[in-house]
Amino acid sequence: MVGAGAHRVNDTHIPLDEIAPLATALRFLAADAVERAGTGHPGMPLGMADLATVLFTRHLKFDASEPKWPDRDRFVLSNGHGSMLLYGLLHLTGYADVPLEELRNFRKAGALAAGHPEYGHFAGIETTTGPLGQGVATAVGMALAERMLAAEFCADLVDHRTWVFCGDGCLMEGVSQEAISLAGHLGLSKLTLVFDDNSTTIDGPTSVSTSDDQRKRFEASGWATIGVDGHDAEAIDRAFTYARASDRPTLIAARTRIGFGAPTKQGLSAAHGSPLGAGEVEAMRKALNWHHSPFEIPEAIAVAWKAAGRRGGVERAAWQRRLEATEPARRAAFSRRIEGRLDAAVEPAVQAAIAAQVAKPAAVPVRQGSQLATGVLASVMPELVGGSADLTSSVLSRPDGMPPLTPGDLAGRHISFGVREHGMAAALNGIALHGGFVPYAGTYLTFSDYARPAIRLAALMGIRTIFLMSHDSIGVGEDGPTHQPIEHLASLRAIPGLKVYRPADSVEALECWYDAVAGQGPSVMVVARQKVPQVRLSLAEGMPARRGAYLLAGGAERDLTLLASGSEVSLALETRELLAKHGLDAAVVSMPCWEVFARQDSAYQAAVLGDAPRFAIEAASPFGWERYTGRSDHIFGISTFGFSAPGSVVYGHFGLTPSAISEQILRLTSTKLKKAV
Amino acid sequence: MVGAGAHRVNDTHIPLDEIAPLATALRFLAADAVERAGTGHPGMPLGMADLATVLFTRHLKFDASEPKWPDRDRFVLSNGHGSMLLYGLLHLTGYADVPLEELRNFRKAGALAAGHPEYGHFAGIETTTGPLGQGVATAVGMALAERMLAAEFCADLVDHRTWVFCGDGCLMEGVSQEAISLAGHLGLSKLTLVFDDNSTTIDGPTSVSTSDDQRKRFEASGWATIGVDGHDAEAIDRAFTYARASDRPTLIAARTRIGFGAPTKQGLSAAHGSPLGAGEVEAMRKALNWHHSPFEIPEAIAVAWKAAGRRGGVERAAWQRRLEATEPARRAAFSRRIEGRLDAAVEPAVQAAIAAQVAKPAAVPVRQGSQLATGVLASVMPELVGGSADLTSSVLSRPDGMPPLTPGDLAGRHISFGVREHGMAAALNGIALHGGFVPYAGTYLTFSDYARPAIRLAALMGIRTIFLMSHDSIGVGEDGPTHQPIEHLASLRAIPGLKVYRPADSVEALECWYDAVAGQGPSVMVVARQKVPQVRLSLAEGMPARRGAYLLAGGAERDLTLLASGSEVSLALETRELLAKHGLDAAVVSMPCWEVFARQDSAYQAAVLGDAPRFAIEAASPFGWERYTGRSDHIFGISTFGFSAPGSVVYGHFGLTPSAISEQILRLTSTKLKKAV
Repeated sequence: MVGAGAHRVNDTHIPLDEIAPLATALRFLAADAVERAGTGHPGMPLGMADLATVLFTRHLKFDASEPKWPDRDRFVLSNGHGSMLLYGLLHLTGYADVPLEELRNFRKAGALAAGHPEYGHFAGIETTTGPLGQGVATAVGMALAERMLAAEFCADLVDHRTWVFCGDGCLMEGVSQEAISLAGHLGLSKLTLVFDDNSTTIDGPTSVSTSDDQRKRFEASGWATIGVDGHDAEAIDRAFTYARASDRPTLIAARTRIGFGAPTKQGLSAAHGSPLGAGEVEAMRKALNWHHSPFEIPEAIAVAWKAAGRRGGVERAAWQRRLEATEPARRAAFSRRIEGRLDAAVEPAVQAAIAAQVAKPAAVPVRQGSQLATGVLASVMPELVGGSADLTSSVLSRPDGMPPLTPGDLAGRHISFGVREHGMAAALNGIALHGGFVPYAGTYLTFSDYARPAIRLAALMGIRTIFLMSHDSIGVGEDGPTHQPIEHLASLRAIPGLKVYRPADSVEALECWYDAVAGQGPSVMVVARQKVPQVRLSLAEGMPARRGAYLLAGGAERDLTLLASGSEVSLALETRELLAKHGLDAAVVSMPCWEVFARQDSAYQAAVLGDAPRFAIEAASPFGWERYTGRSDHIFGISTFGFSAPGSVVYGHFGLTPSAISEQILRLTSTKLKKAV
Repeated sequence: MVGAGAHRVNDTHIPLDEIAPLATALRFLAADAVERAGTGHPGMPLGMADLATVLFTRHLKFDASEPKWPDRDRFVLSNGHGSMLLYGLLHLTGYADVPLEELRNFRKAGALAAGHPEYGHFAGIETTTGPLGQGVATAVGMALAERMLAAEFCADLVDHRTWVFCGDGCLMEGVSQEAISLAGHLGLSKLTLVFDDNSTTIDGPTSVSTSDDQRKRFEASGWATIGVDGHDAEAIDRAFTYARASDRPTLIAARTRIGFGAPTKQGLSAAHGSPLGAGEVEAMRKALNWHHSPFEIPEAIAVAWKAAGRRGGVERAAWQRRLEATEPARRAAFSRRIEGRLDAAVEPAVQAAIAAQVAKPAAVPVRQGSQLATGVLASVMPELVGGSADLTSSVLSRPDGMPPLTPGDLAGRHISFGVREHGMAAALNGIALHGGFVPYAGTYLTFSDYARPAIRLAALMGIRTIFLMSHDSIGVGEDGPTHQPIEHLASLRAIPGLKVYRPADSVEALECWYDAVAGQGPSVMVVARQKVPQVRLSLAEGMPARRGAYLLAGGAERDLTLLASGSEVSLALETRELLAKHGLDAAVVSMPCWEVFARQDSAYQAAVLGDAPRFAIEAASPFGWERYTGRSDHIFGISTFGFSAPGSVVYGHFGLTPSAISEQILRLTSTKLKKAV
């Protein structure tokens, strides 16, 4: 019954007839913690406790004493509002960073046991969840990363599964369909989704809003499915065993009762999102025959849970021995990859490419500069994984020499995500979280909207996911306003901790890409579709774009400063020329990344920005630029949607030409002079 | 074979054996227009021309001479890149606003025949499409609106179908799953989806990214499905007939060849998104035996197409007679609803509610004020339709007396959309576009991200959709950073033409809600979860919140101005009190809607904003506020993500308390005084 593969968990499992009291302990930790906090979601932990107990005591491969063991199974709680289920599991199985005190502190100020599971709070939290559907789609990325890493390093080092708990809400979210469809297509057989089929949503029975046959839906995407009574330990165990033997991703549709054990609230929406109430919890104690005070775990149960938390130790030790027996260079590569460190060869390769680019300037689309950069990086970063949402040759996401990944060849390094921007972004997060890879993938900037919830989660988690977004302005032209981003730069810059890069040419693309892979946290790489002149024509110290903004033309003394990003930097340079004819010395600051610039010291910032009047030029909403110009009339941007016409016509219409801009600046400047007089 | 119902299209259909040349004419209009433009997407129009021809000549109920006939069938081109198919159909069937010249102007500057179909450009464009999946989800709203309006006004006046063309991309997008699932649940049997099953995506054959069994997937959501050869007119005709008789929404999976007729490119990705090339089009002329120059339509074919465009005239006339025979009050109500005018009773009802609220101030959550407002409106606006994404009792989207809509009772007025924010938002757009209703529906502000592509389309189309977004800040508290919006206000304000309201109390909620329903264009109604003091304690002329911002406390003469929105307005008032103790006169400006304020005349704006230093207070990202403060250090906001703790603790942590703010203002002010000295 146990362990399909040679390296599966050893056999010291909790017998099935001893599962029930362990599950009950888990239930009361959840109910009591929510009660104590006066806020929280008891319904799901009570409903899924049996499933969780069978999984963590008999199937999940992990060792609580080494939470970051690279070959552990990943467990994702997609229905993250049931966070107390996860905290309870981590505490009971003996994760050192989850003492009982943390559970007592649930949802309080400063608590790591937060309302929803947050990546980084406890070592056993594999990803932040709460926004529904995200966990499902992130887990697909994890399962894919496992397969890719195994294809590279073989099953001796990489052979683990991904388990996801989710509820009706997760499956109603569209992102789950993208994820399910992708997982089925790629045949991610080591992915198991456990659906908490409790027929209950916040608004009442699920019948108020859905009539889907979930098993049929999953089968339509090539999944194996099995139904199970989610409160029958034997049946659950059989289902997990079935999933582990399956040659396809597997859905376990587990019929459960929300709030299981709470006499008057179980099976009802009322059990979902508020404390059960002291009386109800008391009645639940009687109903489940649990005669212990809150947070009290009887010794025998505590011991059994702890044993479950350590039962993977033997296998982990064996894995460690295999790692140590691995050929040293290979072992070092594996460790470097898992730790997420760049190889020393990366920076020189980028520097060399910059030098070559400076030596032979060329006017090319910035997206092509971005492709150059990913090609340079891919040549020295086997961990670089690319992809696109069915726009490979538009976004130029695949550099030469990056082989496509297919269901039959998971050693490929460029993923065809299909027209699934949201699922793609979440999967990228999963790949980054799994470790061993630096993932990026692309679509058009205007469709970043589709991926936004996953981009936000990347920022919240601070993980190294790179979202490549091309066709970044009205320069898109004839495809028209649905395809011309206007507000997207502003709306992405507003996300805390997200680095929004907009390189001006191939040199800046190399610098920005290097900064993205060498740094912490997520990035959006925004690149123009259209051809632009190269603006960086000489070698500079230390990759200036990596400071977020820098003085590209002109000196400390200046009459005014032009701030621009991406394809408008060359436009600013032309404007500078025109203004010079009128005796105005306009410095040009290229500003590829606000977020990075904001991290520079204030002396550097002041030197770059200068004291002279500042004007911003960007083919996008002016929203936010007042931060640097101080005045709305000093921003040359676009406050409406665009329109369908050749890109240059659209630029002209919005006054984004050197002549229109310089004329307006001269007008504003002379007005001021007049006022001064 | 024709017309299931009594009021179906009359029988002057084009015979099936005469379909082919009509379809060929349509194909060449598309191929030649793309060729002439030098840009565009020929593949889809060539592939779907047979389907479109059979639909428009034999099944679609419409009258080209009256494009806005309320009881017309709706046709949605979800795969909007194939826009030339639609433009060709509109021209050939005789829509007066689509002369041949428009087609020759395709994708040129100033052309109404834009790259993608844009609502408002031609009367026959029912919705803007291009971002994939949106058309499918919008059409679900249209089909639902038809059922709702029929339930209210009976089949004599409302009895039409909704037809959608879509491609693989639309079906890969997650939003399509939300839409399909909802349509199946609601049993929208008059909705037909025609799937262009051409096995081709931009990146190559669909097999590079998907293995879904689409029919099985739709059947899992309760749809009828039928497969058909998309180039066999008889089979197509049978499929449409089947769909019209179906008691469930119906998927027609039509096997087609992309770029049908282009000898070397058909069946390939190469046919998708660029002109075929002069040689290929020439070869296609030979292959399809079409000996006419570009844009030349032989007389017989032109006449046949025109006849098809008029064949609904008889039925339209009959409908018109039925409308005229309708009891006058009922007829007037129907016309008012279709024209989207508010009843004269609405404004007085709102005014009365404001007066009552001012007379009896109460500290309540703003979401409750919002519920009050929707209740007042619903009592005088039978056209008001509400809903929520499974958060009815959290968002308070359903006022007393608004009956739930269920599959069995489509006369209900509050829709349980399920956990499908994106599908919900797109369906709202469809309801608004259909006409007869003013739709709104709610979720948490942080999940506006999920709905963003549909919110953007509402703004682009300028339609009256209202997105209710509660739980609008760190005030959410314990649910933590995934549930605490930070960047959402800024990112929504950055969308052109979108009114983002954030009322401060129940009075402002009434004013903002009224402004939203009385005005043009889409709105986001952002409301706080937590209780706030009532800030509007006296009656004011003309609903001041309707000017976007107004002076709430203090006068024209002031030492400084505090700008705030929503739940922070009361905080600004308290700060004003504290500053007064230090001899500083701080005016308080409540600023519920930037977009509306920006439309006021400059004298009003200047009077409200004043000349004194301005400080902004908002429990959200400061991004964008420099527009009004001019300085970043004059903004009291939040530049990071929040954290899980009671809301008041989170507010305190970020210095959003009257004491912390007033101390900081005093510090900044005294520094300036010192500098001045």
